[in-house]
Amino acid sequence: MSAPGDRDREEPVAAAAAEAALDEARRWWHTDIIDIHPGEIALRGYPIQELIGNVGFVDTIWLMLRGELPTPAQTALFESALVASVDHGPQAPSIAIARMATTCGVPVNGAMASAINVLDDIHGGPGQQCMELYLEIEAEVEQAGGVGEATRVVLQRHRHAGLRYVPGFGHRFHPLDPRTPRLLSLVDAAAADGVVDGRFAAIGRAVEGAISEGKPHRVPMNVDGVTAVIYCELGFTPALGRGVFILARSVGILAHAVEQMTQGGRIKGPMPKSIGYTYTGPARRSVPVEDDERRRTS
Amino acid sequence: MSAPGDRDREEPVAAAAAEAALDEARRWWHTDIIDIHPGEIALRGYPIQELIGNVGFVDTIWLMLRGELPTPAQTALFESALVASVDHGPQAPSIAIARMATTCGVPVNGAMASAINVLDDIHGGPGQQCMELYLEIEAEVEQAGGVGEATRVVLQRHRHAGLRYVPGFGHRFHPLDPRTPRLLSLVDAAAADGVVDGRFAAIGRAVEGAISEGKPHRVPMNVDGVTAVIYCELGFTPALGRGVFILARSVGILAHAVEQMTQGGRIKGPMPKSIGYTYTGPARRSVPVEDDERRRTS
Amino acid sequence: MSAPGDRDREEPVAAAAAEAALDEARRWWHTDIIDIHPGEIALRGYPIQELIGNVGFVDTIWLMLRGELPTPAQTALFESALVASVDHGPQAPSIAIARMATTCGVPVNGAMASAINVLDDIHGGPGQQCMELYLEIEAEVEQAGGVGEATRVVLQRHRHAGLRYVPGFGHRFHPLDPRTPRLLSLVDAAAADGVVDGRFAAIGRAVEGAISEGKPHRVPMNVDGVTAVIYCELGFTPALGRGVFILARSVGILAHAVEQMTQGGRIKGPMPKSIGYTYTGPARRSVPVEDDERRRTS
Amino acid sequence: MSAPGDRDREEPVAAAAAEAALDEARRWWHTDIIDIHPGEIALRGYPIQELIGNVGFVDTIWLMLRGELPTPAQTALFESALVASVDHGPQAPSIAIARMATTCGVPVNGAMASAINVLDDIHGGPGQQCMELYLEIEAEVEQAGGVGEATRVVLQRHRHAGLRYVPGFGHRFHPLDPRTPRLLSLVDAAAADGVVDGRFAAIGRAVEGAISEGKPHRVPMNVDGVTAVIYCELGFTPALGRGVFILARSVGILAHAVEQMTQGGRIKGPMPKSIGYTYTGPARRSVPVEDDERRRTS
Repeated sequence: MSAPGDRDREEPVAAAAAEAALDEARRWWHTDIIDIHPGEIALRGYPIQELIGNVGFVDTIWLMLRGELPTPAQTALFESALVASVDHGPQAPSIAIARMATTCGVPVNGAMASAINVLDDIHGGPGQQCMELYLEIEAEVEQAGGVGEATRVVLQRHRHAGLRYVPGFGHRFHPLDPRTPRLLSLVDAAAADGVVDGRFAAIGRAVEGAISEGKPHRVPMNVDGVTAVIYCELGFTPALGRGVFILARSVGILAHAVEQMTQGGRIKGPMPKSIGYTYTGPARRSVPVEDDERRRTS
Repeated sequence: MSAPGDRDREEPVAAAAAEAALDEARRWWHTDIIDIHPGEIALRGYPIQELIGNVGFVDTIWLMLRGELPTPAQTALFESALVASVDHGPQAPSIAIARMATTCGVPVNGAMASAINVLDDIHGGPGQQCMELYLEIEAEVEQAGGVGEATRVVLQRHRHAGLRYVPGFGHRFHPLDPRTPRLLSLVDAAAADGVVDGRFAAIGRAVEGAISEGKPHRVPMNVDGVTAVIYCELGFTPALGRGVFILARSVGILAHAVEQMTQGGRIKGPMPKSIGYTYTGPARRSVPVEDDERRRTS
Repeated sequence: MSAPGDRDREEPVAAAAAEAALDEARRWWHTDIIDIHPGEIALRGYPIQELIGNVGFVDTIWLMLRGELPTPAQTALFESALVASVDHGPQAPSIAIARMATTCGVPVNGAMASAINVLDDIHGGPGQQCMELYLEIEAEVEQAGGVGEATRVVLQRHRHAGLRYVPGFGHRFHPLDPRTPRLLSLVDAAAADGVVDGRFAAIGRAVEGAISEGKPHRVPMNVDGVTAVIYCELGFTPALGRGVFILARSVGILAHAVEQMTQGGRIKGPMPKSIGYTYTGPARRSVPVEDDERRRTS
Repeated sequence: MSAPGDRDREEPVAAAAAEAALDEARRWWHTDIIDIHPGEIALRGYPIQELIGNVGFVDTIWLMLRGELPTPAQTALFESALVASVDHGPQAPSIAIARMATTCGVPVNGAMASAINVLDDIHGGPGQQCMELYLEIEAEVEQAGGVGEATRVVLQRHRHAGLRYVPGFGHRFHPLDPRTPRLLSLVDAAAADGVVDGRFAAIGRAVEGAISEGKPHRVPMNVDGVTAVIYCELGFTPALGRGVFILARSVGILAHAVEQMTQGGRIKGPMPKSIGYTYTGPARRSVPVEDDERRRTS
């Protein structure tokens, strides 16, 4: 209850409170990325109609993720890494999941979602982890007095911490990944042209050398290791590194989902029905009969 | 620009507008399900601390989905359908996806998400579609003058519309699904006790009879067909029917994801690596050399 | 049990059966897309090391989805549609979901998955549906004797079927979408150059004309309607149309997820906590006390 | 090339190889959980038709996850924790995502998938992390000479490791969570009855005491902290703890998705359209005109 005069005095306060709450709400989704008004869309400040037809898709990916347009030479190097990562066969879990999902009645968005979701630390993370390793080595170079020594220091530190797997090196399948030498030659060319400074190519090679020492066979840089070189050279953060790998692999995921649609199939399991699975649990047994009303539901 | 006196006159308007926007925002997420205040939580009006320990989990599922608590007999019948649906083996796509996801570094929430996502129209929809069929038949009973005739009318209508698959009947694997007779006997018992009226059990049996006519073997009601009977008897909508099937199957999905964690494995594909896939595409060919700057990115 | 001589006679049979099962398994994941052997990867027949650095990312998307490399002019038109679709603001459900997911501890793969998943019939489907409409009109042109008449026939058919929404036209927000005239001008230029034949641009304009007749304001083609023109002109199927839209929008989803990571926040809800929701359900009530052991769980 | 006699000699080898590959395939999906044959389904050895109608849904969850049936008293305590966790309002990110997904055309499986996916370390992990904390303290009790001392040792260790947040304690919203005292009283009753030994209830209370020391207000155990007590008392692993939380919260997710379906709405954003967002990026600018053919795509 309030005296007659109170209402007038309180109103400006209430109005201010409502305005403050509204302002907070408007700021809740604040962004540097996109500005939209009726009839207007701008990405990072650029009107969309100026970007369309003038700027490529890869340039736009860079603009959206980094805030500024890349140079053509940066785009070319970035693009080579994207092309290298689009697919690794129908039996990679992400791809197999997309294909199985399609036969369960899921449209492409759902098939892509279930598939992309599994590009986590193990299936989608080695590139990101390799970038983190390179950046850790790079931060050590000055104090260690060179790339070789910094690499030894950091690898030693990782071994002491119990890490036995160096992300980005070795492959269960390819003795030498055909993508690695090709991409490395593009990095070298870009370094020669001054597009990048070649620091991370040197670090990647130093890691390969260090972990191959004393081994009967070289442990070669794989596609994660070499794309990590490229993304580091181009200034991407490790989290963005995983992100752009996912953008690239989404292409393969989509292609396989659509091919499966064309092939047909309903509720496609991982193996043909003629090949069953092995049950390894308890032998057949009876539900214990108890004099207990709770367990019996009828 | 405004004259000095204007501001005072406009303020109540602005205040009213801000209040209206805030009210709209508060109503944006309005719900009948849960009411929360500091120190207070109520589900459908019941204080949470009264539900905990007094009301079972299955009763709470019903309360959340339907708005009121079920009777114990309703709970028992509902529960039998949930128990029947928890799992159908490691090679069902949903389960295989959960297991593969786990080996990609995804935690249980992610493994469950990728798996549940594929319980779509084909892998998770037949129960819902069967409920829709039963309800369509039920709506026809009075005019057709009986269940048998209504069933014939509706099945005929579906055939004319080009539908060749009757959801809830037949099975690729089980000649007779062991869950069906057991669940049907529980429905019959519930009907005898007046818990349900048995209308949909009669409809389900009429469908089985009608589609088996003239066939060498009976096309038996499967687990989707019989749980559809139960959910219809208990008054669930078809959309809720798919929902509660998912709640049940989530149990199997979780169990398999956790078993796979225990078994280990990294990036588990659908088949062991020793068994490859067949490539059926174009033979090896070279990228066309063009005198074109756009295609070459370096 | 078998006589001594039986085993020898049976072995070839068993061997044949095992080989047949293995062959079936190898064919289970057959694909035209990618061929992998140790040290070798080929996409649609092209060795990956020849694609990297010679063929752009957009060309590779086309190659993976369509089987052959596009011409540079096809790439350019396709690319313009991709650029146009990367983002539509932080409050689009897909984007908001990616941002909220990030604050729940989900890495970028999971944030992208939850977000892409909702690009379903309503949020991601209008482009696909618009392509289906255009193709239906196109199939009618010859018999109807022209685009205008075919458009009228098909729209009439849709109205009779109860469809009241024409996908690809009108916008809740933009009176005129700035992307539409720009993209249409690129289609017209491509048609003038003989890259595409302009058939679907004509159909799109005919639809806009037909549905605007008798309306006070024109119902303009929106970004879904104009990208549908482009994808139809370039020979994409409707399912692929949804797929490439998702590839494009994934860029915005990733950009917003990463921006949210930078902004921080834990368990970000849809609105700031200061703005609550409205509870509209039953008033506070007590759990009924029953003389029933089942309901009480302790 | 082989001599005529070779083939006969090689066949047994090939047959053995094929059989070995098939055996590996059959073992690839081996499981202790479920055994299926035509007409037969057994969960953990129990025929499904014996479980249906005799064993409750919560008992079946336990059986599937743990391998054996629980006692009725174990079920009751487990069930109380499940009931406590079903929902925490429409503005929790998981629930809001399910509701938004529904308005994008996603069916319940997809809405549940996008929502469950975000129950990750921050939104779904505190219960699991709290279980890990309790187990770490429990492992220290003997050496430390008591619960209080073990608690101090472990909390000190966590502080030294830079952890500043104790999962399971404190709440941004509830001064005292109404679920906590109710669930604790059920644990105490179960301990008094010998169902559990009460060790983790003591640990949970010791943590609350230790972190509240010297604070003006007690930092109370929240629902994650008390359900962690229950799951530890009942012998669940931390990973299973997150899993059963997800099973419980899935009920709320489904209820809200279905309520949103009933309310309608198309492409529901996080806030009503009348409340925009704030753009904080670069001011409007033009795409740089370059004398460069690569950037221009048309």
